[in-house]
Amino acid sequence: MTDSRWAHSPRIVEAMRRAAELADRVRGSTSPNPPVGCVILDEAGSVVGSGATRPPGGPHAEVVALREAGSSARGGTAVVTLEPCAHVGRTGSCAVALREAGVARVVYAVEDPNPSAAGGAEELANSGVAVADGVLAEEVSAGALRGWLHFVRNGRPHVTWKYAASLDGRSAAVDGTSQWISSPESRAEVHRLRAGCDAVLAGTGTVQADDPRLTVRDESGAPLRRQPLRVVLGDRELPAGARVFDDSAETLRLRGRDPGEALRVLAERGVVEVFLEGGPTLAGAFLRAGLIDRVQAFVAPALLGSGRSALGEAGVVSLSQAWRFYFERVTMCGPDVWISAVPVEG
Amino acid sequence: MTDSRWAHSPRIVEAMRRAAELADRVRGSTSPNPPVGCVILDEAGSVVGSGATRPPGGPHAEVVALREAGSSARGGTAVVTLEPCAHVGRTGSCAVALREAGVARVVYAVEDPNPSAAGGAEELANSGVAVADGVLAEEVSAGALRGWLHFVRNGRPHVTWKYAASLDGRSAAVDGTSQWISSPESRAEVHRLRAGCDAVLAGTGTVQADDPRLTVRDESGAPLRRQPLRVVLGDRELPAGARVFDDSAETLRLRGRDPGEALRVLAERGVVEVFLEGGPTLAGAFLRAGLIDRVQAFVAPALLGSGRSALGEAGVVSLSQAWRFYFERVTMCGPDVWISAVPVEG
Repeated sequence: MTDSRWAHSPRIVEAMRRAAELADRVRGSTSPNPPVGCVILDEAGSVVGSGATRPPGGPHAEVVALREAGSSARGGTAVVTLEPCAHVGRTGSCAVALREAGVARVVYAVEDPNPSAAGGAEELANSGVAVADGVLAEEVSAGALRGWLHFVRNGRPHVTWKYAASLDGRSAAVDGTSQWISSPESRAEVHRLRAGCDAVLAGTGTVQADDPRLTVRDESGAPLRRQPLRVVLGDRELPAGARVFDDSAETLRLRGRDPGEALRVLAERGVVEVFLEGGPTLAGAFLRAGLIDRVQAFVAPALLGSGRSALGEAGVVSLSQAWRFYFERVTMCGPDVWISAVPVEG
Repeated sequence: MTDSRWAHSPRIVEAMRRAAELADRVRGSTSPNPPVGCVILDEAGSVVGSGATRPPGGPHAEVVALREAGSSARGGTAVVTLEPCAHVGRTGSCAVALREAGVARVVYAVEDPNPSAAGGAEELANSGVAVADGVLAEEVSAGALRGWLHFVRNGRPHVTWKYAASLDGRSAAVDGTSQWISSPESRAEVHRLRAGCDAVLAGTGTVQADDPRLTVRDESGAPLRRQPLRVVLGDRELPAGARVFDDSAETLRLRGRDPGEALRVLAERGVVEVFLEGGPTLAGAFLRAGLIDRVQAFVAPALLGSGRSALGEAGVVSLSQAWRFYFERVTMCGPDVWISAVPVEG
């Protein structure tokens, strides 16, 4: 995009950071559309509009932000986390909307890898708008857009496996007790992570053993208005009174045990981000299938020495076959260690 | 000790930090005496001497530092990590040595809990030396003096259980392969930790399975001159050719499986700090006996799903019986997470 040093000015970087925050907040509510944030600066560089993608059928982030900016957008800069779309879908092209609003410059973080929507940058440049990309690209790719980029590039939902375990990797004691291995702080974090996903997936074994709700609740325990789809995978019979079948959220019952098949069904329903809370068997099946894209482990400062392992059979016989990851982030979460790991490629 | 604000001056705190570093370096070589560091400042506050405890039979830290300072100690300040001893042992009382050298002030970090040696501070104060304590007390107690303080207070060696495992708590794959679960960085750290201990303890099961050397080696793999005592506990028969019986260090073979009894034997031999590298069975036995004082876990970014668990049966049936710890320190060690945990009291 020629010389785009102007796009890395502190004001624009700050606006991008704000756009990324706005995008984060709508994660889980936009699928199959990407959660995008946009900030409009006027000619003088002041923020005059901001917004994020509305739920499917609603306006994209650029349109939300332009509406707030009104005529102040003319001659200004649009700062947006994803390349503005060029296609005309249910909502009209964002490239056209930006051009018609008279913005002079458009800065985006990440290029649109979706062939049907890409080309927005070119369209804008052709009509005389200065266009630059790459501002905070890494943060945005690893942040709100992570699941969606994965979905577009790989044709399947992004899967985060979450578990809570003792330091020695046990998720329940011998008698089955598992509440609570991790701290209130970790459990609150799990609810925030769930809220950013489209579907929460567990196996019939976990439903039998733990009878989880799989809903997103606030600190007081009250369910949030928007709930991810609850998905139960497996062939075991479940009691009709299982909590996962209550009316606090929609629940999809999938027979069979094939992780790939389950993800295909979910993809067809527009699920982009899956939060896997299955027990050891289901986690092992996803791992063997190469279908875990991130691990969120909450490791409690406790030792059990026996009981249910967090991870079941994963096809590893020799150490050289271990599933290798790298630790992307390691932080304390209350008294626990919260470890985020992603697979080593290849 | 009346008004001791003078003892918290930057110069004295800095000298104490240096004394603590000197003490750290002699950990593992002084038992059953404490690893102590001492810095002598002259009347103007310049460093004129420093030293650390020599191996048993050699001079204490104060005497080493006073020798270096010579007549410059007169009117100066002695900064020492532990209260100077009052008893006359093999080396004479340090309190007397300090007084005779003419130091005007003595600052120490930690009070001596040993009834036979305590009283040095009082003796010095009675002879007109200004005495203050508590400078960097927490760092020193948790640092070089940790094991020795534990030994004096509890009458048994301090036990650090070290293990390396995958994120899901496995220390070997199904076929027994375990080299190397953790990274070269973690393995180098393990050698540094071993070097600070008096004895390295493993079970006969681990010796059978892994044939470890249990020696301290440098980055090139060469054994260091000073080696901790190697201790093998258990009743299984071992091949005479096991590496642990080679001539690179002394090895003590203990029959039986009682951790408490093993520690009693080691205490009698002057072992203050034990580095437990036993397998899951031995670690479980020590944990059940309440004899693990710290855990050093090297957690690798890998998932196995099966294989040998790092920790074996530890007497936990229900989650409420879990052995609770707190994470004292969590850092990266190369690609691994290095977690230091200590038991929650009571």
